[in-house]
Amino acid sequence: MANPARASLSHRILGGDLRAAARLMRKADDRDPSAATELDALFPHTGRAHVVGITGNPGAGKSTLVDMLMQTFRSSGRKVGVVAVDPSSPYTGGAILGDRIRMQRHAADPGVFIRSLATRGHLGGLTRSTNDVVTILDAMGFDIILVETVGVGQDEIDIVKTAHTSVVVLVPGMGDDIQIMKAGILEIADIFVVNKADRPGAERVVAELGTLQNILSQNEGFVPVPILKTVAPSNQGTEELATAIDNHRSTLTSNGKLADRDRTRLLETVWSIVRESLDLRFKEVFDVRDQADGILTRLEERKLSPHALAQELVAALLARPK
Amino acid sequence: MANPARASLSHRILGGDLRAAARLMRKADDRDPSAATELDALFPHTGRAHVVGITGNPGAGKSTLVDMLMQTFRSSGRKVGVVAVDPSSPYTGGAILGDRIRMQRHAADPGVFIRSLATRGHLGGLTRSTNDVVTILDAMGFDIILVETVGVGQDEIDIVKTAHTSVVVLVPGMGDDIQIMKAGILEIADIFVVNKADRPGAERVVAELGTLQNILSQNEGFVPVPILKTVAPSNQGTEELATAIDNHRSTLTSNGKLADRDRTRLLETVWSIVRESLDLRFKEVFDVRDQADGILTRLEERKLSPHALAQELVAALLARPK
Repeated sequence: MANPARASLSHRILGGDLRAAARLMRKADDRDPSAATELDALFPHTGRAHVVGITGNPGAGKSTLVDMLMQTFRSSGRKVGVVAVDPSSPYTGGAILGDRIRMQRHAADPGVFIRSLATRGHLGGLTRSTNDVVTILDAMGFDIILVETVGVGQDEIDIVKTAHTSVVVLVPGMGDDIQIMKAGILEIADIFVVNKADRPGAERVVAELGTLQNILSQNEGFVPVPILKTVAPSNQGTEELATAIDNHRSTLTSNGKLADRDRTRLLETVWSIVRESLDLRFKEVFDVRDQADGILTRLEERKLSPHALAQELVAALLARPK
Repeated sequence: MANPARASLSHRILGGDLRAAARLMRKADDRDPSAATELDALFPHTGRAHVVGITGNPGAGKSTLVDMLMQTFRSSGRKVGVVAVDPSSPYTGGAILGDRIRMQRHAADPGVFIRSLATRGHLGGLTRSTNDVVTILDAMGFDIILVETVGVGQDEIDIVKTAHTSVVVLVPGMGDDIQIMKAGILEIADIFVVNKADRPGAERVVAELGTLQNILSQNEGFVPVPILKTVAPSNQGTEELATAIDNHRSTLTSNGKLADRDRTRLLETVWSIVRESLDLRFKEVFDVRDQADGILTRLEERKLSPHALAQELVAALLARPK
């Protein structure tokens, strides 16, 4: 090998070293420049894992559901990675403690890997960090990667878009059909799960989802998706969910759409890296112009409009088209 | 006037024409090129309105609370604008019907204006559209602008950051303190509201918020904020909320932080416009390179890594630093 020192982390990862994997994840998350080289070395080994997005409102019981799902896939001999994306406090960080607690239960099992990511305020940063973790786990031979996201924002929708299979988790009592519409994730679901299905109102949520799907079926290209019921802590319905995920992959493979989803994944990864670079460069250009022309003061005094300033900055940022 | 035909919409808006305002909002939302000129003409007349962000999970009763708050401010003689940001279906659009229903109740009152915005998938697009509506209402002399957002994603956090005062709405029974942490909005709240406070568990949410604030008080610079209880449909507590909002503005004015928040608002507006331009330009550059070099195929075949491709595209996009 030409440069064994630099390639060593990725080399160890390809050999199954989980500690090396955790180390590269931290480096990638910290945007350590050496991480890109390692990720590039892993990239040719990716493309086999099935990436499953699990999303829903806070309180939907996603973590427990993901734990049970992980165990179900493990018992069929598959290696399972979990990425828990938690857009929690941009100030306090969060997310890391829960991780340790969850990992301890599986400490002796090298077929399980759990990693939490918290937002740190940079735009698209979560999508990028998520994809980096998926790349590492995929290259290591993890068969299933469960990406758990909270919430309904654009960032979460972007992350869900990069999954091969998207599972949307709802619970009884958190809202009627309008709330489901508001969740903004109706059309991106490949599988619906009504969790906490032992609570009153579960049947009503299932019925409402069915009705909504009937309405949407009038739209061209809309395909109704399975609606499952689970009670995560007592493991009810998780085997059916695992089967539904496997079936969805089979369908994607046979109708050729797996390649489309894979392409979307890769393009989202590229765009998230580009976006972050542009964000940094924008801040540089802004500071230079501000020192030269006092653009910030002129903006605050309403003498320079946001549109005019934006145009000026974009012109300064971009290369002339050739 | 040099060009009365082009300036007419903004001119009519400054004269108080609500239909002209609605028309410009639609044009701005559609990214009609003429909208920027009109918004530029309005911009020098802005900077007087107080922008209040109201955020919380689906089902928190925000719409009703906003309606009541609007009436409270109206009864003190102030003009109130509402921007309801609804990151609903990226496919079906949504949001518009509810708007009409809400507006009808105030059809005879020129001191009220309600506008809903739905996400349309373009990154940062909601922040930009929201700021355009705020600019128009501010220039028209609306005193209070309530920006109602759903959810906990980065896009919503960006929008909330552009408010002078941020109100975070919680409800009993939707989760314990961990859920509150997950909402990711604890530190951005200037005022907490526990809505549906007639339900069991309201006191517990208030107590938990108090405890969390005590913990966070150990962080330097953290200032505890008011925790209010409301029952929106019966108008309980909304007058106290209106007073708390007014008090917050007074505090910001006297400690000089109003200018900071205004600056953040303006910079977010500039950045949202820049981001959108860069996004479009990126897609152009990508297509050109793909036709020339087949980058997409090379990416799919794992022969070109996302990091390498992103670097190449950024280099093609950006002007050389001078």
